[in-house]
Amino acid sequence: MGKGKVLEELLRETCFLIKKVGRQVLKDYDLTSAQFEVLQKLYFNGKMRMSDISRELGVAKSTITGIVRGLESAGYVVKAKDPNDLRVNVLELTSRGKEIIEKVIARRQDFVSQCLKSLDIGITERLREDLNRLLDSIRKESKDWL
Amino acid sequence: MGKGKVLEELLRETCFLIKKVGRQVLKDYDLTSAQFEVLQKLYFNGKMRMSDISRELGVAKSTITGIVRGLESAGYVVKAKDPNDLRVNVLELTSRGKEIIEKVIARRQDFVSQCLKSLDIGITERLREDLNRLLDSIRKESKDWL
Repeated sequence: MGKGKVLEELLRETCFLIKKVGRQVLKDYDLTSAQFEVLQKLYFNGKMRMSDISRELGVAKSTITGIVRGLESAGYVVKAKDPNDLRVNVLELTSRGKEIIEKVIARRQDFVSQCLKSLDIGITERLREDLNRLLDSIRKESKDWL
Repeated sequence: MGKGKVLEELLRETCFLIKKVGRQVLKDYDLTSAQFEVLQKLYFNGKMRMSDISRELGVAKSTITGIVRGLESAGYVVKAKDPNDLRVNVLELTSRGKEIIEKVIARRQDFVSQCLKSLDIGITERLREDLNRLLDSIRKESKDWL
């Protein structure tokens, strides 16, 4: 139990700081965190219905409508017909919307690269292997926990 | 650059899955993600003004008002006077509110413990040391990036 606690704490702070550094990008685009969360969902899930977005983010549909209006007028998302049900609108990222997510990811990766410079190359390599093993175990185990 | 990219991806998926497992707890409490985010902010930052919460989460003050109303009536948060300015209300976690965050953290830690069981004890120990080194570097470096 003790080891799991320590490792969870290390991973939590590590990922918290990487996330914070990455989201600095949003200032350049004048985007709120809530707007970014919508772009992120669309980036990783593909097209989504407004109702799915609001359920996944846990905010009211009326709130999402407001958030999306801003994203639409800035050209980061477009509405399209759901090919499975032409009465339903789905939301889709534009290339400008994708660009934002990719800039955030690039900044996270540049930051991690910079942080690795002060570590021995051997440690970085070992960390990669060990995190890979941990992630394998997490992927398998998560099937029973989700 | 390559190493930073790989490590960032490993950490991103690892933390994404741990987060997802932890948030399963919210189903038992019938809490939305947005409500949980508010509790989490209060847990880690202490008392906060509504305006600070809405700025940090990047949603309109009117949205936060709705989210907080639900949390208040469920007994997870209370409003109190800001000791620095008695005209202003601050939001505070109750012990029931704290309990939720602690249950999420406990579930995350139980999950990580379980995942470590399939790894050699030596790898777990090494991972702890190496992640500690990485986090040290991240803490130092983040000062220039935030």
